[in-house]
Amino acid sequence: MSNPHLKAVPLEKSYRLLNHGPTVLVSARDQENTDVMAAAWACALEFQPAKVTVVLDKSTKTRKIIENSGYFALQVPTLKQLNMVQAVGTISMHDQPNKLEQCGVELFQFDQSDIPVVRGCAAWLLCELIPEPHNQQTHDLFIGKVIAAYADERVFRDGHWYYQDVEREWRSIHHIAGGHFYSIGDPVSADDID
Amino acid sequence: MSNPHLKAVPLEKSYRLLNHGPTVLVSARDQENTDVMAAAWACALEFQPAKVTVVLDKSTKTRKIIENSGYFALQVPTLKQLNMVQAVGTISMHDQPNKLEQCGVELFQFDQSDIPVVRGCAAWLLCELIPEPHNQQTHDLFIGKVIAAYADERVFRDGHWYYQDVEREWRSIHHIAGGHFYSIGDPVSADDID
Repeated sequence: MSNPHLKAVPLEKSYRLLNHGPTVLVSARDQENTDVMAAAWACALEFQPAKVTVVLDKSTKTRKIIENSGYFALQVPTLKQLNMVQAVGTISMHDQPNKLEQCGVELFQFDQSDIPVVRGCAAWLLCELIPEPHNQQTHDLFIGKVIAAYADERVFRDGHWYYQDVEREWRSIHHIAGGHFYSIGDPVSADDID
Repeated sequence: MSNPHLKAVPLEKSYRLLNHGPTVLVSARDQENTDVMAAAWACALEFQPAKVTVVLDKSTKTRKIIENSGYFALQVPTLKQLNMVQAVGTISMHDQPNKLEQCGVELFQFDQSDIPVVRGCAAWLLCELIPEPHNQQTHDLFIGKVIAAYADERVFRDGHWYYQDVEREWRSIHHIAGGHFYSIGDPVSADDID
């Protein structure tokens, strides 16, 4: 971790990193393998203790790695990373063992963690798997307890996103289907309501 | 249902109505009550049969109604409805029995359904609760099987959103915290990748 802009986010505010529904990257490492995949079906589950859900298909290598290791990271990629996100979401490590290299994924680790995370994202949630065999087997649904969270202070600080103040390439991306995404737009605030 | 622009969406494509992570409205009716609340923590769970998840706090009336009735709708509101969404997400029917009137919510029903839905939204998913006591009690997590889906063809048709082709007031809204939202932005597509 050498980027001075990466700052810890209080766990009780970490839900705000996912609340706008971005497509995320899921990363994990076990004793044999390291993989990264894309997931549109990730969501906050609880404020405190902070928890998240993510749907992981049985065909993915990342899922097996998480089942082995008990840890994973969710991270919020940016528009600049669009092609990489689409690539890691399309190519399987089962077919292409050098997938990460091929997709141009650069990994690093935060201090005091050995969960691999993807360089260049806007925010990261490090999670410990809460094993739930029924949810995992029946629904492909994995629940994680957030054990640390970080964001690049240039785009998220003091509990808020500042997408509107930085270059467009920082925007979160929101997959619809087949490689078609929307970027996040402009901030809007509800009027005060009595 | 009198709006000629509302068209059925094939169930296997209904996930695309939620895939970009919008804040949704949750509506339900039992023999005594009808309520609508806002939820940022809603997500697709399965393509086919189409399923969704939504987190419903124990303090909400809507949750109790869904537990009683076994049915609910998720709907994708628009920027034009921002104040209404914030209002139904802030005011509880426990405190204000005339909440829906106060918030300016207009309800209707689709043919062959008695699930109440909110007029003026961009899309609707009618759901049958799949009862899961552990998920509901431990995680406040409710799973629904999508039994019908509809969208306003002016903004979603042929399996795709067309936010970029209509007035900005149609955009989906994505809550961060405390009444601060982002609207969805522009379409972006990954390059073709071999």
